[in-house]
Amino acid sequence: MSESMRECCGLFGVYDADSAIEKTYIGLMSLQHRGEESAGVACTDGRRMDGHVGMGLVPDVFNQNTVDRFKPFRSAIGHVRYSTLGSSTIKNAQPLLINLRGKPIAVALNGQITNAATLRKEYEDKGSIFTTSTDTEVILHVLADPRHASLQDAFEHSLCHLEGSFCLLFLTPKEMIAVRDPHGFKPLCLGQQGNTWAVSSESCAFDHAGFRFTREVEPGEIVKINRFGLDARRFAPKECPRSHCIFELIYFARDDSYIFGRSVYSYRKALGRALALESGVEAEMVMSVPSGGDSAALGYHEESGIPLEHGFVRNRYIGRTFIRPADLERAKLADLKLNAVSDVIKGKRVVVVDDSIVRGTTSRSRIGLIKQAGAKEVHVRITCPPLKHTCHYGIDMQQDEDLIAAQYDPRQIERFLAVDSLHYLEFDSMLDCLGDARNDFCVACFKGNYPVKLRDKVCKEQLG
Amino acid sequence: MSESMRECCGLFGVYDADSAIEKTYIGLMSLQHRGEESAGVACTDGRRMDGHVGMGLVPDVFNQNTVDRFKPFRSAIGHVRYSTLGSSTIKNAQPLLINLRGKPIAVALNGQITNAATLRKEYEDKGSIFTTSTDTEVILHVLADPRHASLQDAFEHSLCHLEGSFCLLFLTPKEMIAVRDPHGFKPLCLGQQGNTWAVSSESCAFDHAGFRFTREVEPGEIVKINRFGLDARRFAPKECPRSHCIFELIYFARDDSYIFGRSVYSYRKALGRALALESGVEAEMVMSVPSGGDSAALGYHEESGIPLEHGFVRNRYIGRTFIRPADLERAKLADLKLNAVSDVIKGKRVVVVDDSIVRGTTSRSRIGLIKQAGAKEVHVRITCPPLKHTCHYGIDMQQDEDLIAAQYDPRQIERFLAVDSLHYLEFDSMLDCLGDARNDFCVACFKGNYPVKLRDKVCKEQLG
Amino acid sequence: MSESMRECCGLFGVYDADSAIEKTYIGLMSLQHRGEESAGVACTDGRRMDGHVGMGLVPDVFNQNTVDRFKPFRSAIGHVRYSTLGSSTIKNAQPLLINLRGKPIAVALNGQITNAATLRKEYEDKGSIFTTSTDTEVILHVLADPRHASLQDAFEHSLCHLEGSFCLLFLTPKEMIAVRDPHGFKPLCLGQQGNTWAVSSESCAFDHAGFRFTREVEPGEIVKINRFGLDARRFAPKECPRSHCIFELIYFARDDSYIFGRSVYSYRKALGRALALESGVEAEMVMSVPSGGDSAALGYHEESGIPLEHGFVRNRYIGRTFIRPADLERAKLADLKLNAVSDVIKGKRVVVVDDSIVRGTTSRSRIGLIKQAGAKEVHVRITCPPLKHTCHYGIDMQQDEDLIAAQYDPRQIERFLAVDSLHYLEFDSMLDCLGDARNDFCVACFKGNYPVKLRDKVCKEQLG
Amino acid sequence: MSESMRECCGLFGVYDADSAIEKTYIGLMSLQHRGEESAGVACTDGRRMDGHVGMGLVPDVFNQNTVDRFKPFRSAIGHVRYSTLGSSTIKNAQPLLINLRGKPIAVALNGQITNAATLRKEYEDKGSIFTTSTDTEVILHVLADPRHASLQDAFEHSLCHLEGSFCLLFLTPKEMIAVRDPHGFKPLCLGQQGNTWAVSSESCAFDHAGFRFTREVEPGEIVKINRFGLDARRFAPKECPRSHCIFELIYFARDDSYIFGRSVYSYRKALGRALALESGVEAEMVMSVPSGGDSAALGYHEESGIPLEHGFVRNRYIGRTFIRPADLERAKLADLKLNAVSDVIKGKRVVVVDDSIVRGTTSRSRIGLIKQAGAKEVHVRITCPPLKHTCHYGIDMQQDEDLIAAQYDPRQIERFLAVDSLHYLEFDSMLDCLGDARNDFCVACFKGNYPVKLRDKVCKEQLG
Repeated sequence: MSESMRECCGLFGVYDADSAIEKTYIGLMSLQHRGEESAGVACTDGRRMDGHVGMGLVPDVFNQNTVDRFKPFRSAIGHVRYSTLGSSTIKNAQPLLINLRGKPIAVALNGQITNAATLRKEYEDKGSIFTTSTDTEVILHVLADPRHASLQDAFEHSLCHLEGSFCLLFLTPKEMIAVRDPHGFKPLCLGQQGNTWAVSSESCAFDHAGFRFTREVEPGEIVKINRFGLDARRFAPKECPRSHCIFELIYFARDDSYIFGRSVYSYRKALGRALALESGVEAEMVMSVPSGGDSAALGYHEESGIPLEHGFVRNRYIGRTFIRPADLERAKLADLKLNAVSDVIKGKRVVVVDDSIVRGTTSRSRIGLIKQAGAKEVHVRITCPPLKHTCHYGIDMQQDEDLIAAQYDPRQIERFLAVDSLHYLEFDSMLDCLGDARNDFCVACFKGNYPVKLRDKVCKEQLG
Repeated sequence: MSESMRECCGLFGVYDADSAIEKTYIGLMSLQHRGEESAGVACTDGRRMDGHVGMGLVPDVFNQNTVDRFKPFRSAIGHVRYSTLGSSTIKNAQPLLINLRGKPIAVALNGQITNAATLRKEYEDKGSIFTTSTDTEVILHVLADPRHASLQDAFEHSLCHLEGSFCLLFLTPKEMIAVRDPHGFKPLCLGQQGNTWAVSSESCAFDHAGFRFTREVEPGEIVKINRFGLDARRFAPKECPRSHCIFELIYFARDDSYIFGRSVYSYRKALGRALALESGVEAEMVMSVPSGGDSAALGYHEESGIPLEHGFVRNRYIGRTFIRPADLERAKLADLKLNAVSDVIKGKRVVVVDDSIVRGTTSRSRIGLIKQAGAKEVHVRITCPPLKHTCHYGIDMQQDEDLIAAQYDPRQIERFLAVDSLHYLEFDSMLDCLGDARNDFCVACFKGNYPVKLRDKVCKEQLG
Repeated sequence: MSESMRECCGLFGVYDADSAIEKTYIGLMSLQHRGEESAGVACTDGRRMDGHVGMGLVPDVFNQNTVDRFKPFRSAIGHVRYSTLGSSTIKNAQPLLINLRGKPIAVALNGQITNAATLRKEYEDKGSIFTTSTDTEVILHVLADPRHASLQDAFEHSLCHLEGSFCLLFLTPKEMIAVRDPHGFKPLCLGQQGNTWAVSSESCAFDHAGFRFTREVEPGEIVKINRFGLDARRFAPKECPRSHCIFELIYFARDDSYIFGRSVYSYRKALGRALALESGVEAEMVMSVPSGGDSAALGYHEESGIPLEHGFVRNRYIGRTFIRPADLERAKLADLKLNAVSDVIKGKRVVVVDDSIVRGTTSRSRIGLIKQAGAKEVHVRITCPPLKHTCHYGIDMQQDEDLIAAQYDPRQIERFLAVDSLHYLEFDSMLDCLGDARNDFCVACFKGNYPVKLRDKVCKEQLG
Repeated sequence: MSESMRECCGLFGVYDADSAIEKTYIGLMSLQHRGEESAGVACTDGRRMDGHVGMGLVPDVFNQNTVDRFKPFRSAIGHVRYSTLGSSTIKNAQPLLINLRGKPIAVALNGQITNAATLRKEYEDKGSIFTTSTDTEVILHVLADPRHASLQDAFEHSLCHLEGSFCLLFLTPKEMIAVRDPHGFKPLCLGQQGNTWAVSSESCAFDHAGFRFTREVEPGEIVKINRFGLDARRFAPKECPRSHCIFELIYFARDDSYIFGRSVYSYRKALGRALALESGVEAEMVMSVPSGGDSAALGYHEESGIPLEHGFVRNRYIGRTFIRPADLERAKLADLKLNAVSDVIKGKRVVVVDDSIVRGTTSRSRIGLIKQAGAKEVHVRITCPPLKHTCHYGIDMQQDEDLIAAQYDPRQIERFLAVDSLHYLEFDSMLDCLGDARNDFCVACFKGNYPVKLRDKVCKEQLG
């Protein structure tokens, strides 16, 4: 229905801190863009654990009662979620809080386990039962496997059985544990405030919650935080090839985050500059489709010298989650989000910078507003190559057949959008902006080269 | 508690149209910034009238049931509201739908009647009773006065008894009537789609609802729309001095609106340019406090040549109406709205453009973020002169004593904000940007020269 | 849709008492059967007044916040309501709290003003406006009439202008005033706890709220309660004929109330005894349709000696206000309220006692349950004569044409119900049970002899 | 807080029927007294399964959306629940819907597994994880045990591992399975409508949902219902001693149910008759504490010839689940439920029949009302012996120390209640009313002789 792609989850945790629940609330609010469907926390006071999950946005799930109930607890992990797999029900909301080997443990996942079905079948055959349809429950069964003498052992030996992308955050009465898969698909970072540690999917949450960004959790690393401090180990070799999700940088992460070793804002500006160099066009103004194209439009303006204008005004009351009466005509309500300022657009040749074209219908509708506002010419510039292949590592994207670029070439899409020109950033330009790290990213959504086989091999070696 | 000023109301109406309730819904959504406290509509099918009001934002008040219930109606007026006077209760929500001389009539007001108390006393002495504390009910009593032989007469003779600012929208089964006070304090404009007419506080609502902006309702004009078309008359002489609210242009109206004969976006860019000319400073970047300072920052950047950066990232999930658990520390949650991008700010001399400083505390907190992000110098530029006097014409501002500029001079405020420099736009520069219309605006909030006496005189002449 | 008759309102007030809001809450809970549609209170602390109304049952309308907000107030009046006239909206909920002659006053009504339309027209012609469609607002306009020099005067002279049935409860910062119409259509009584006075539609509310029943407010009496105590006067002559609503005794009031000078429970038992004497039949058991027929069935059992059985079991989770998913078949859900105990009914000749047959469909459905449970014979006994004429004095009854007894004679209804015999109590027997007061009751719903003319005359004399 | 005992669960299921969800809804509404805390259903259309659970009463959990969503399904099982063990959260609501051996299965339980902790530990050691704290999840782990070659095998061999009381209802896409423990603690019965079968905890639900009571599920029986019809087998020997819960007959079940081979209504009348014979007293009236004592009071009246009166009037708006503002004084609100009719009680010697005294405070408060109403003497008669021992088989009773009869003898309780006499029915009289079945009942709450050992033995034999 909507044509946007959706990140599947965000994680935030804090260990042994004053106002732990408040910090977690603030952290989750800052990661809300990573999951709008459900939210939850699990807390501990060092002995007992308690938790709360609910459907909806963070403020829908956490009311005064919840905050009061969890106030005494000094450690907490939180989660925001979309459903990529499994139905969208309260049962699947996270963190999951269960008893493992007789002791309580909570866990939250950002990612997608590609061999979850195999593992699930294997454990069901052994007599295990599954009460949710989440990958997270599969991970718990792996950890509960009696082949491992202890939970400690389980952590050291079982993570290699998991294939795919996974950032995990565990909480027990005695420690908080952060895990990142060997390829580093998803971002995960560590923050510090005095002696207190926090973990977050994106660094922007630290700024709000009062932590200082320290470093990223390394791919293949397991970081335990307890009263003795921070203990970091590897469960996969350092030389394992990296596959950071390039779409986090282009599309998902917030402009003010620092992930995969770089500033999101700066990378996006660099993409805009590269677009200007690569596909110059005579125009009187450049504008962005807010808010995805904002930083890149600034880069384009700087490189090209074409004046920047705020051609779209955003209705700040309409979030992604705006619930409308069903009968109101949908097209008109989509328009409610943005309005084109005709006073500035009229009679001009306009460069429009955006971060993606997914199914194409929303783009067409928005560009229609610019033309109605009187633009003489419209030139669309996209900050990445055509998006042709769906993601299997945790992004809730359309099926291949729904991606317009999987079906049509750029010239056809140009005609579909009815614009004067359309240019996608060249694949190599996108990588060039990454500098030395150009080979450390998963680009499967552009090329179809899923980094799966490689990972399988790594894990088998580890397992042995 | 909050330091923002608040517009008190927004009006939208449509006469004899398909999907009248949907168009009104869309119109009100586009005017939501003019009133977040309650919303309502009154509708007619040409014979009977019905209405619905509720507390909260437009989507809170209008659910599927409401839309279904009003679908058959072809005419509707709607209202969004803050309470400036009277308590904030459902009873005071508008439109008011009553029986006047045995016939149903609905009315909605944007403005403030400065002699409402006097009129109320006068009518109570005659035996009238008041069930709300709104100015709107006072207006209805004036219209119901049996001295007027008919409602027609009442409209022609009674409006002059009203002092202050008022845009009124009436609906009866047979017509929709728009009225604007003789001084034109508040904006009100007409839109057209084929033979169908609409009325709106701001033109941006027409873009969304599918109407073309036609013209503004003139100050002192009464516009009746019925099945014979549009009939416009004057109830006050054309030469009556104008007192457009300059704060609508600077602060309240949406960037994409056209009011008081000019584009809001362009005026704000002009203010930014004027600021750059008037208070140049050496700096590496200019940024805005979103979203109020966005257009002006662009103007500043153009005039000064200093690079523009999006120094603040906005959390798009936090609206003005974000309801937080009471115990979460307030300061931290204010921060949740905006985060400074340290990657771009660090080590730079920064010019920050904003549209106002009201009480000063929010400004200080936001500028604090910029400094925490590593700015070397911070230079604040405000797009208007110091705000010293409260408004009596419909804006819910702080009391005089709460306005920081009423108590302190700019140098003191500069120290309070702890910035390297602070500059307010000169009063004359602000007017210069208005061109020939420089004398048609109410500037009482800057100068204290309330245009009250003048209006009284006009009305008395009329009354005779 | 439902075939029940509905009382239109209940009143409860308390003056200068600890926990006034709590006592009022308890009072309204005890009067809930008199109005399930909206509820409200108005309170005063001796200086200012405040109020709250809402749609729904008392516990829906009064939550913790409301109770907390009104805790400091020592005087309160409350109201529960059905809409007989006017639409069912929050605007019409009571008490109405307004400014009258510059002073706040709250008022609540139980009854129906039969000349409300005339009065309304008269005041609209004088320039008054009406914001609700309630009779209560009409009463306020009568009181506000500037012909009366003071509110005191107004009370003394204006009540005679009101025709129909009315119990009124007023609250001002200084006093609580109870008024009952000259005919005494509706019940209203006074309770005492030490020096504290309370007013209630029915005495049962006093038992729960901690008051002792003192006496009824007399027809034509106005009772003022203030810091000097209780002051009672007449505004209509004592000899004015009485017209107590006999249906209050038969149907509406609670069994545990004492109204119109008698115990409701005892009167109902007497009706059951009269039925047994008048229409004896051989049977193995007598049972009631709960809860309306309970007391009368007991009387029938005592008089006839036929064993009493609880033939129906009630599902205590299904109130009158049970909201069901629309698609669940309605017939089946009606059945959910009552289930017949086949173990006791099977093979028996059964006398069924009920208090009324309105449209006939619910009676038929319930008697169907008894037959399905295996009754050999079913003999229906109704505790009043056939109900043929609708009420104009405040009961929300069906239109004449919807009353089955207005269309069919008892033999036809007997066939419609498919029972072995049906008997309505004789008109004279019903009156005989009233003893000396047999002529003091309104029996218009049985006979059509509305006591209107008589009342008009009285009032005119008064007015002179 | 409340002194009532609470049944823990109710079950209702229907296989291959039109309007299955509606019938289940009606069934659960009729069983609402067995669990007010949460409700749920699981449905199947023969291929896929879906479910919904929620906190609250049945109408709170099932709104129109739920009914619409499940309309296409022709088989459903439903559950209402109190929490006896485990916390009261949505996670523990039933039916549980999981994947077992790769196939979906739903299960709901009424009862309490006395060896749940042991089994849980055993399975956790094998690597199983538990996501709820319910006995029901333990049962699923037993069924999932890989020692059983198939689910069929599991059903036949694993049920004997379960100790305690259990009625189970399973649903798979292909069949509905009903199981009752070998001792028959809890009631469970079969109903039929043409070829369609239903299962219910109590027969009253069949009357409402349109089924005819056929027979009870036998203790130790497993009944499978699928497209081939009904297949009943035993998993425990028929001669296993029975332990029907006598408190179901005395207290929990609805008067209109037929369970444990007898009519609840008739048994209760017989208890009342026995009381009259055993503890005659001179009195002018007998009355019940509604609704628990209603049937027994009737029996007492018949046997003694003392006139029956409805001495208490019930406020029908106050259910067990009435949620009150916290500050309203609790004592007064308890009174709101019942009011004593002083007109009938005053000056009389009164026999009061009730079904139990748990903690004693509610009884004292209610009897206080009778005395305030003017009773000359009050004689309390209880339809069972003193309640001294808590239940371990599924009733949420007070701890032993909270049961007044565990601490005090009847004479002391008589003084605590301040009544003229108190008599508990003799233990043997209670059993005499059961006739030949007098030894088939669990009377542990009176005698402390928990029938646990016996059951252990049976199960072990079975297991072998």
